[in-house]
Amino acid sequence: YTIAALPGDGIGPEIMESGLTLLETLGKKFQHEFNVTVYPFGGAGIDETGDPIPPQTIKGCSEADAILLAAIGGPKWEKAEKTPEDGLLQLRKTLGLFSNIRPIAVSDSIAHLSPLKTERVKGTDFIVVRELTGGLYFGQPKHWNDEEATDTLFYKKSEIERIVRQAFDIAMTRGKKLTSVDKANVLASSKLWRKTVNEIATEYPEVTVDHLYVDAASMKIIQNPTAFDVIVTENMFGDILSDEASVITGSLGMLPSGSHAVSGPSLYEPIHGSAPDIAGKNIANPMSMILSVAMMLRQSFQLHEEADTLEKAANEVMDAGFLTADLGGTTTTTAFTEQVKAILE
Amino acid sequence: YTIAALPGDGIGPEIMESGLTLLETLGKKFQHEFNVTVYPFGGAGIDETGDPIPPQTIKGCSEADAILLAAIGGPKWEKAEKTPEDGLLQLRKTLGLFSNIRPIAVSDSIAHLSPLKTERVKGTDFIVVRELTGGLYFGQPKHWNDEEATDTLFYKKSEIERIVRQAFDIAMTRGKKLTSVDKANVLASSKLWRKTVNEIATEYPEVTVDHLYVDAASMKIIQNPTAFDVIVTENMFGDILSDEASVITGSLGMLPSGSHAVSGPSLYEPIHGSAPDIAGKNIANPMSMILSVAMMLRQSFQLHEEADTLEKAANEVMDAGFLTADLGGTTTTTAFTEQVKAILE
Ligand SMILES: CC(C)[C@H](C(=O)O)[C@@H](O)C(=O)O
Ligand SMILES: CC(C)[C@H](C(=O)O)[C@@H](O)C(=O)O
Repeated sequence: YTIAALPGDGIGPEIMESGLTLLETLGKKFQHEFNVTVYPFGGAGIDETGDPIPPQTIKGCSEADAILLAAIGGPKWEKAEKTPEDGLLQLRKTLGLFSNIRPIAVSDSIAHLSPLKTERVKGTDFIVVRELTGGLYFGQPKHWNDEEATDTLFYKKSEIERIVRQAFDIAMTRGKKLTSVDKANVLASSKLWRKTVNEIATEYPEVTVDHLYVDAASMKIIQNPTAFDVIVTENMFGDILSDEASVITGSLGMLPSGSHAVSGPSLYEPIHGSAPDIAGKNIANPMSMILSVAMMLRQSFQLHEEADTLEKAANEVMDAGFLTADLGGTTTTTAFTEQVKAILE
Repeated sequence: YTIAALPGDGIGPEIMESGLTLLETLGKKFQHEFNVTVYPFGGAGIDETGDPIPPQTIKGCSEADAILLAAIGGPKWEKAEKTPEDGLLQLRKTLGLFSNIRPIAVSDSIAHLSPLKTERVKGTDFIVVRELTGGLYFGQPKHWNDEEATDTLFYKKSEIERIVRQAFDIAMTRGKKLTSVDKANVLASSKLWRKTVNEIATEYPEVTVDHLYVDAASMKIIQNPTAFDVIVTENMFGDILSDEASVITGSLGMLPSGSHAVSGPSLYEPIHGSAPDIAGKNIANPMSMILSVAMMLRQSFQLHEEADTLEKAANEVMDAGFLTADLGGTTTTTAFTEQVKAILE
C-alpha cells in the first residue's frame, strides 16, 4: 500500500504524525506494509519550494494508492501569489476528485458538546455528498480588475450525473433518503441539477428523494438535523452546508472526510482547518486524522478489520476520559496517540 | 403616506390583514392618513392576471412612499412559466432595492425557544446587510439546456461600494464592528469585494473590520452568534446566511426586514415564507408583519413614536401570554391582532 502523506501547515504536522504512528503500529499488528512518503504541500510547499503543490507532490500523489492530507493554510501565506488553497484546488482538479463525502454523526455521548440543544441534535446521522471539481470554483471566465469581477457557475450534465449517482448509491447503503440541495428558483444551473436528480431517481425507485433550496437547507440543518440521511449538492453550497453541519456535532476535531475520483487514488483528510492559533502546542485533537486513516483503510484498501480496530482503540481512549482541550480535557496530542498505540499493541 | 400592500400567497393575506388593521388604528390614534392600496403579486398575481408582477403592481409600487409585502410562493405555482419568485426578483431589480437589512436579535425572554443552547444564543444582536440586486441572481450569461448550465456571479465595484458603505453606516450607529463575508480564497468577485471593503474601511476609522470566509461564517453563526454586530455580504451568501441566522432566534415568525434603493420607496417584509401548510387556518404569527410595519414607520416615514407604540403594544400582548402556535400558544392570528388593537385604542 503506497500512501502519499501531506502534513501541510498549522496543526497539520502534529496530527499527521499521530495518524502515521498509529498506521505503522497497525501495519505491524496486521502485517501489512504501508509505504508512506511525505510530500511538501500548502504553506509548507511554498516555504520549501516556492510552490504550494510542487511537481514531486503531484507526481507522488498521482502514483499513490491513497493520499492522507492533514490541513493547510494560514495568515503567513494569505498574500502569496499562489496560495496553499490554490494548491488544494489544483490537487483536486488534477486528480479528478469530484466527490467529497463528509459524514456528520452525533452519538448520544457527545450530544452535550453540540451548540444545539441536546435533545434536538441527538441521533443526527447523515452524509453530505459535495461536488468538488465544478461550479463556481473552476468555471471560466473567472477574473477581476479594479472595476468589476466575474465568476462562473458552470456544470455539464455529466458532472451532475456522476455525483448524483454516487449519492444515490450511498443512500442505498443507508436510510434510502436523498435530499438534493439547489437554488432552482433562481439559478439556471440548479434547474439542470434538479432535472438531473429527478431523472436519475427513476433508476433508484427505493430511494425517497426531496429537494430543498439552499437557504431552507441551511435552516433545516439547525432546526431538524435528525431528518437527513444523505444530502447531495454542488461545490459552493456543499462547502457552506458541510461546514455548517460539522459544527452542530460540537466536535469539529473528530470529523474525517474522503474525496474520490472516477479512478485513481482517493484523498482522506480532517474537515477542519490548520488552526494556526493552537499550532505547535501539542494540544490539537488527532481524532479527525485517526478517523481519516480508518476511512482510508476501509474505503481504499478494504481493510475493514484494521479500520474497526483503530476506531475502537481510539474510542476506548476517549471513553476512558483522555480528552484533548477542544473536548474540555487536558490530554496532549502525543499522549492521546500513545494511549491508542498502547491499546493496539 | 401612500403605501402599496402586496399580501401575496399562503399566510400572506392573513398576516397582511393584521398589519394593515393595526396601521389603520395607529393612523386614527396619531391622526395620520395612511393611503393603502392592495396589489396582486406573486401566486395571487398569476391567478388574477397570469403575471406574478402585473403592470399595475409595478406602477403602484414605484409611485408609493413605501411597500409592504407579506409572503409569496407555494407548490401551486412552482411550474409556472414565470414564478412568484421571478416576480419578486423583478420587483427588486426594477426598484433598485440593492440593500436588504435583516436584524437578528435574541432577547433573554425568547432565548429558550432557540434550537441553540440557551446560554450560547442569549444576547445575540446583529444585523445582516445583504446585497440584493447583483451577483449570481442577475449576472449574465444565465442559461441552461439539456447538456450544460451557466450562471454568472458578476459585480461592478460601484455595486460593492454602495452596499459596503451602507453596512459601515449602520455599524457606526451600533457596536462599530463590521464582519465582511466572502470566499476570497476561491472567487475572483470576493477578491474585489475584500479589496473594496478594506478601501472603504479607511473612511470609517472607528469601525473594527474583519473578514470571514463564507464557510467559516456559517459555522460562527452557530458557534458564537453573540460575537457579531453587523455582517455584510453579497447576494447569494446573504440569502443563505441570513436564513441560517434567522432560525437561531427560534422565532422565525417574528423577524422583519427592509430593502432599500438609492432613491424611491423601500420595501418591508417578514423574512419567512408563505407557509402554505398553515395557510387559511388563522394560526400564523402576525408579529413579523407587525414589526415590518413598525420598521416602515420608523425608516420610511420617521414616525418613531408611532413605531415604538406599535412595538410596545405587540410585546405587551406577548408578555401577557397571548402566543400563537409557533411559540407554543393557542392564540389565533385575528385574536392576537384584536388584543394589540385594543391596547392601541
Ligand atoms: C480551503 C478551501 C479552498 C476549501 C474549499 O472551499 O473547498 C475548504 O474550505 C474545504 O471545504 O475543503
Ligand atoms: C424567494 C427567493 C427568490 C428569495 C431569495 O433567494 O432572495 C428568498 O429566499 C429571500 O431570501 O428573499
